[in-house]
Amino acid sequence: MKEFKEFHSEDAGIFFRVDKILFNKRSKFQKIFLFENKTFGRVLTLDDLVMLTEKDEFFYHESLVHPALSLLSKPDKILVIGGGDGKTVYEIFKHKPGEVHLVEIDEEVIRVSERFFKWEKGFKKKNLKIFIQDGVEFVREADYRYDLIIIDSSDPVGPAKKLYKRDFYLNLKRVLKKKGILVMQAESPLYHRKIQKKMYKELSKIFKICRFYISPVPTYPGGIWAYLFCSDYYEPLKSKIKRIPRRLKFYSRKVHRAIFEIANFLK
Amino acid sequence: MKEFKEFHSEDAGIFFRVDKILFNKRSKFQKIFLFENKTFGRVLTLDDLVMLTEKDEFFYHESLVHPALSLLSKPDKILVIGGGDGKTVYEIFKHKPGEVHLVEIDEEVIRVSERFFKWEKGFKKKNLKIFIQDGVEFVREADYRYDLIIIDSSDPVGPAKKLYKRDFYLNLKRVLKKKGILVMQAESPLYHRKIQKKMYKELSKIFKICRFYISPVPTYPGGIWAYLFCSDYYEPLKSKIKRIPRRLKFYSRKVHRAIFEIANFLK
Repeated sequence: MKEFKEFHSEDAGIFFRVDKILFNKRSKFQKIFLFENKTFGRVLTLDDLVMLTEKDEFFYHESLVHPALSLLSKPDKILVIGGGDGKTVYEIFKHKPGEVHLVEIDEEVIRVSERFFKWEKGFKKKNLKIFIQDGVEFVREADYRYDLIIIDSSDPVGPAKKLYKRDFYLNLKRVLKKKGILVMQAESPLYHRKIQKKMYKELSKIFKICRFYISPVPTYPGGIWAYLFCSDYYEPLKSKIKRIPRRLKFYSRKVHRAIFEIANFLK
Repeated sequence: MKEFKEFHSEDAGIFFRVDKILFNKRSKFQKIFLFENKTFGRVLTLDDLVMLTEKDEFFYHESLVHPALSLLSKPDKILVIGGGDGKTVYEIFKHKPGEVHLVEIDEEVIRVSERFFKWEKGFKKKNLKIFIQDGVEFVREADYRYDLIIIDSSDPVGPAKKLYKRDFYLNLKRVLKKKGILVMQAESPLYHRKIQKKMYKELSKIFKICRFYISPVPTYPGGIWAYLFCSDYYEPLKSKIKRIPRRLKFYSRKVHRAIFEIANFLK
């Protein structure tokens, strides 16, 4: 059996049978490998790390987008850094936002995702602007003001490394509206506690409100994933939920509360 | 590298490097394999399914025991079916219960666990009575009345198969006090929805209150695990929490609420 294996630590991890290879190429930035697996559907990996599988991506993308976006009554400008697979943007459009900016360093990831994922129509929305650019550079130079910024990056190795630095965080704050929200994917509560502590340390100096939350993501290391919610204005468990899109698979009012409260075990 | 692999579906699963084999023997009932892995510590498997790893077992055992037991003000008699590894009983003793009955079909599992796990002193408590017996037979014949019954079984294959039948459930009800609580491990919300529906269908006919809850268990299929809380008297989100043992790693008041509420996504 042809197999894809991801090590989550030096000596344990997850494996998938590769039923069909759909794409396998080294881009300018990373190795892009997309394959089909019966249980998980299409699986996108970058540099041998699973980015998403069709079967369980909803846990991650609904968790990344809706807890923050559901608090904003009229989301006008939204920035997504990373997320070239397009699913974050697709979830965002369920809220009928104004303008969405997607900043992805690797154009090839967008091309592959347009071709192989069923949420590809998100890429074609008129109010989506795609920037093929380094996210760090983008926010350094940007002159926009966002209601919401979502960091949908890969792990702090390879091209995403710079997305875990103080300078970057300060620029994010600069391009965020006063009542804006920043949400970052924040790695595994099991395997990446050090990175999480560092992120929290820096970001809690910059934002009045910084809250971790977690959700299941079966194919990510440890099966649960953390996210960091930062704002000077919104409190995830106090601010009012303005709307919840229909037909979600995971996120709901009760789940909103639960994913923040369950994160208490991290303390 | 010598490797232990568990398939969670026909074509995907988890792998561990086997650094050292501590025990490897077929008992009268099943294959018992215990090995050492650097990341996860000691790993106990039965019939090639991971029962526990030292590193992440606390998610499972704290979730199985404390949500129900913390609601009982003076737990007098407690029954555990399965759980020969001893960790469930160990968690129960944190509540200073009256008498605890452990019914395990496979004595060999108890012997191995006494020898290799650091919670082995739980087995030596004076108020623990161990029955080496089939759980179904035990409750058919039992003339005790329990405040709490915990079904800490393996999956519904092999020796645990009979633990998923209506007759068994009716006998559980019979040996439970009027204000008693039954808690069952209820498999994976990702892989075992059919079993869960069946369990729920039967048990909700027998008990007024039947609530699923879930918690992370990184090394179980899908990384999250379900539990079923059944009672005619206690409502997990309404009844008062009487006490929470110290130094738990996962369970807390906030987590109590969260693990029941997050299960809403299963509907």
